[in-house]
Amino acid sequence: MKHPQSVGLVAPQTVSFSEPLTLKSGARLPEFTLAYETYGQLNAARSNAVLVCHALSGNHHVAGYYDANDQKHSTGWWDNLIGPGKPLDTRRFFVVGVNNLGGCHGSTGPRSLNPATGKPYGADFPLVTVEDWILAQARLTDHLGIDAWAAVIGGSLGGMQALQWALAYPERIRHSMVIASTPRLSAQNIAFNEVARQAIMSDPDFNGGHFYEYDSNGRVLPKSGLRLARMVGHITYLSDDQMAEKFGRRMRHGKHHFNYDVEFEIESYLRHQGDKFAETFDANTYLLATKALDYFDPSFDYDGNLNAALARAKADFFVASFTTDWRFAPERSREIVYALLHNGRNVSYAEIDCDAGHDSFLLATPHYHAALSAYLEGILL
Amino acid sequence: MKHPQSVGLVAPQTVSFSEPLTLKSGARLPEFTLAYETYGQLNAARSNAVLVCHALSGNHHVAGYYDANDQKHSTGWWDNLIGPGKPLDTRRFFVVGVNNLGGCHGSTGPRSLNPATGKPYGADFPLVTVEDWILAQARLTDHLGIDAWAAVIGGSLGGMQALQWALAYPERIRHSMVIASTPRLSAQNIAFNEVARQAIMSDPDFNGGHFYEYDSNGRVLPKSGLRLARMVGHITYLSDDQMAEKFGRRMRHGKHHFNYDVEFEIESYLRHQGDKFAETFDANTYLLATKALDYFDPSFDYDGNLNAALARAKADFFVASFTTDWRFAPERSREIVYALLHNGRNVSYAEIDCDAGHDSFLLATPHYHAALSAYLEGILL
Repeated sequence: MKHPQSVGLVAPQTVSFSEPLTLKSGARLPEFTLAYETYGQLNAARSNAVLVCHALSGNHHVAGYYDANDQKHSTGWWDNLIGPGKPLDTRRFFVVGVNNLGGCHGSTGPRSLNPATGKPYGADFPLVTVEDWILAQARLTDHLGIDAWAAVIGGSLGGMQALQWALAYPERIRHSMVIASTPRLSAQNIAFNEVARQAIMSDPDFNGGHFYEYDSNGRVLPKSGLRLARMVGHITYLSDDQMAEKFGRRMRHGKHHFNYDVEFEIESYLRHQGDKFAETFDANTYLLATKALDYFDPSFDYDGNLNAALARAKADFFVASFTTDWRFAPERSREIVYALLHNGRNVSYAEIDCDAGHDSFLLATPHYHAALSAYLEGILL
Repeated sequence: MKHPQSVGLVAPQTVSFSEPLTLKSGARLPEFTLAYETYGQLNAARSNAVLVCHALSGNHHVAGYYDANDQKHSTGWWDNLIGPGKPLDTRRFFVVGVNNLGGCHGSTGPRSLNPATGKPYGADFPLVTVEDWILAQARLTDHLGIDAWAAVIGGSLGGMQALQWALAYPERIRHSMVIASTPRLSAQNIAFNEVARQAIMSDPDFNGGHFYEYDSNGRVLPKSGLRLARMVGHITYLSDDQMAEKFGRRMRHGKHHFNYDVEFEIESYLRHQGDKFAETFDANTYLLATKALDYFDPSFDYDGNLNAALARAKADFFVASFTTDWRFAPERSREIVYALLHNGRNVSYAEIDCDAGHDSFLLATPHYHAALSAYLEGILL
């Protein structure tokens, strides 16, 4: 019998790599740092390591908490998944969370100092792709002394990374767990990203991406654009049904006020989410993460043929989607499943009934966690 | 046999009303002007008049063209519907298009001079509701000497007006034609409107809604916010499938450029739509039209009971929805249909298979126009 617990108090680590990294764009990062966290113990055979990849706004703080007195605000974003007795059981697995290159929580990104100028990179930070992230994560893998991951797991943009690991390093990943993801964005997905980017770039405080230098001089950060970007994002993370249930047409004060203050609860929710995000996230990181999403398409070099693109993969796969996810609908996950089956891969696929839309992948709904537990328990160490 | 033709060269008219109009909010407009157009001839019995109500960004220029040498850029927005031999046949019907109160194409709105100050209303223009629009349209109806409309027709927000006519003036409308509409916005609908409003209001050039005075002094209009609002709107007007078909992941230059210029065709489309709209539309009008959408809910005074709310209606109804419309999905139209049937109304309902999403109501697809023609031909004059 399980007694799910937190991994407890955790602390981030960093590792710096001085060998340059050549990115897909051709740009070269002379050096870079990755922030990461680990939970559980690497076993003697080094066969129990699981990498957790984050999505658009996530980071390396996946589980546990930073402040025992303020667990509410300092707990990792996928804490319900990871810990003793949880689906990704830290009594059995050594779990690693990493902040991606270009991030804003400790890994080298637009806020970091550009060694060539001594100033923050800002807009000069090169665009990074999902492929580049996996290249950088491979350096971390080496650093940790891990030959092959027992599993790489991620939701949404994190799921793209789990898939890309299986393509870039077929020998270094035994199980790829791709959740609420897609093999490539649709035109509608790109359209929402483009609105977010235009919102950020048309914020006068964005200043072409060079806004850090001015911040200390009293200039403000481009919060207004980032806030809008997050608001539009949030609409796509929730399902129509869930919004109807959570907010419906419920009003703040029970009657119409005939002005532009908050009248409906949904307005209050969106403004709050936007404000909160704009305080903590970096606009340049948000921009480049949306581009990484847009660019990802393993079939691009195969004339759009996903079957051919996934032929390199050797891992076993767990793929999961959620019925009410309209950002990356179940159909998109099934494209991955069919292409993998075409290539004779072992694939477990779960299409989970959950009303929370795209964000379902972050919840601890019983069927979902049961499917994850069953799959993870079956991984041989 | 029909030979569909244009109504040809047309010109807008205006009518001013000097008796004050008390709005739903309690605010009073001391006087107001409505811009309108008419096509065809009012018959001797004055029984063949059809009012066309516009949606969020429409106006009174519904059919015909203003410039014979530039028909492409000067043709009315629903010209495919209206004309000799077209579904709304001007050989039989007298058709009226009207720009709503608060509009920016000739009717009194935020750009108009406030008689109290001698300056443009700007943000001081009162919020208007669908109910207020129908009050104002009733004045125009009187002015034209029309006792009862043979039909009132509209799509989207225009459909709400067609419905509201049947509730506000049950004796003055014989047929209400409600297309691609909804009895009230969902939380998700309100959420998209709120993003649009925040985009406009956070544009520094918006200046709290008082931006006209500054325009002549060289200050710019809040185009950046209006552009974003239109971009996000456009995503909701098209279907995911249609976007996939029209744009997919097609790139401008065939390869990734690793910068924030247009790379995918969908980005180019959205930017173009946003730019074009921001040049011609008014930000204050856009704001207040989104609020009119949010507020509309005939069931509000009936504890959410739509059956009770629609009991007043006496008209016959034509209701149509489109299978790929995810802004106002067929389910929303069916709510109207069920409530009308509950009240014993005659209702024709068409759920039309069309891949163009919400914008389907503007297209001349054969099944859709056949349904409109059949219904309109059946109207007794």
